[in-house]
Amino acid sequence: MNLQDQQPHTLRKMISDGQLTDHTSGMAKGFIQANVVILPSKYAYDFLKFCFKNPKTCPLLDVSETGETSFPIYGKEANICTEVAAYRIYRNGELIETTSNISHLFTKDMVSFLIGCSFTFEHALLAAGIPIRHLEEKHNVPMYMTNIPANTSGQFKGNITVSMRPMTMQQAIKATEITTHFNNVHGAPIHIGNPEEIGINNITQPDFGEPVTIKDNEVPVFWGCGVTPQSVALDAKPELMITHAPGHMFITDIHESQLSN
Amino acid sequence: MNLQDQQPHTLRKMISDGQLTDHTSGMAKGFIQANVVILPSKYAYDFLKFCFKNPKTCPLLDVSETGETSFPIYGKEANICTEVAAYRIYRNGELIETTSNISHLFTKDMVSFLIGCSFTFEHALLAAGIPIRHLEEKHNVPMYMTNIPANTSGQFKGNITVSMRPMTMQQAIKATEITTHFNNVHGAPIHIGNPEEIGINNITQPDFGEPVTIKDNEVPVFWGCGVTPQSVALDAKPELMITHAPGHMFITDIHESQLSN
Repeated sequence: MNLQDQQPHTLRKMISDGQLTDHTSGMAKGFIQANVVILPSKYAYDFLKFCFKNPKTCPLLDVSETGETSFPIYGKEANICTEVAAYRIYRNGELIETTSNISHLFTKDMVSFLIGCSFTFEHALLAAGIPIRHLEEKHNVPMYMTNIPANTSGQFKGNITVSMRPMTMQQAIKATEITTHFNNVHGAPIHIGNPEEIGINNITQPDFGEPVTIKDNEVPVFWGCGVTPQSVALDAKPELMITHAPGHMFITDIHESQLSN
Repeated sequence: MNLQDQQPHTLRKMISDGQLTDHTSGMAKGFIQANVVILPSKYAYDFLKFCFKNPKTCPLLDVSETGETSFPIYGKEANICTEVAAYRIYRNGELIETTSNISHLFTKDMVSFLIGCSFTFEHALLAAGIPIRHLEEKHNVPMYMTNIPANTSGQFKGNITVSMRPMTMQQAIKATEITTHFNNVHGAPIHIGNPEEIGINNITQPDFGEPVTIKDNEVPVFWGCGVTPQSVALDAKPELMITHAPGHMFITDIHESQLSN
């Protein structure tokens, strides 16, 4: 079975039935995959406002109505409790469990957020002949904490996290042109070049993911990263917060071609 | 004094001091003007979510922190209580007063929203040689209620309101190209042509504003209108809601050239 050509609802059903437990990278080609953050409703306003105030790092795709397990646009028939292959459960900011089903934790008071993911624009970069080193080297993308503060919203505050892809400066310019049109999934880069300018002191040691080779004629190019809203939310130490586990994204019903910008 | 060339903070100071009470159309040329909605905090989450779910009709520019009179991006030094020339006070959905100062009503529980206004893209249309009939005829823009439902958020629901500008089909195509780049202020048109298709039965009788001439070779072009969030919020009958009075917009510190898209 070629998972790349499957429809999102088919894959989500397989995940729900426990038949599919892998990373979702490359599945349902062309369909938007999303980071997931689920919080009690008392945090929902400040978190929604955090996303609004930080569109490059926290590009909000959809938000459920309170207590609903589906999404108005990106997953009308979805069940957020079972259709992500691996969830992480945090209590008071501490990871306590990784699980494949959160039905027992979900209440009428929960709100689910879908946040854009850079998997989406990597297809477009590849199509333009721009290398994606972590795919070439079969690694997870390297991610770094920066010294750039996100815009604060209520109790949600902290510095932004970036993902990094090395390429030539000519390719970096082309990649900027391309990702400018992907505002729903991070948009243009946050920084190009010297990592120290944004507080990254050792490019060979990412804070998350794995390091990749940077060739002599290449510069590192940094994009806002969907890890930011998760890490900022964790810093606020909510009594309960549920996210997807890294790489196990929610596969939405919306195709890239439906993104308006 | 040429108000067109004044800086936003100068004009807002004049408004605050009672020296300026006019419509703000044409003032501080190139700076974004905004619709204003002020609500008690218990409505803020659903209203913010309403804006997120209806980006064309309710393009949210900025939102204050609860109880703050300034805005994080569009008016860092602003005082929303005095710097709009005319406010409307609604209680339980009924207009009870128009006033030039709301300091006596503003509490630590209020949240202020700034919503994009089509004044912003009219400059760009004029620059491209597209006629703006209501400016030519010195009218307020004609606005119509449609049969197109907005996306519901909590208690906020209703049909969207549109503004209309007549032009030739060639100009309509050009105007669509141009306004596509103004996503922060309504973006591309919602409809072009036959008004009945969107529930407007008499184009000569707008629901708000004033009618304009439509020439034989012209089609009506409809954009989402900032009246929508106000009318939807009023339908929810909040115990207190404060808005700008029509035409008396909040003049923001952000220039058109700073809009990223």
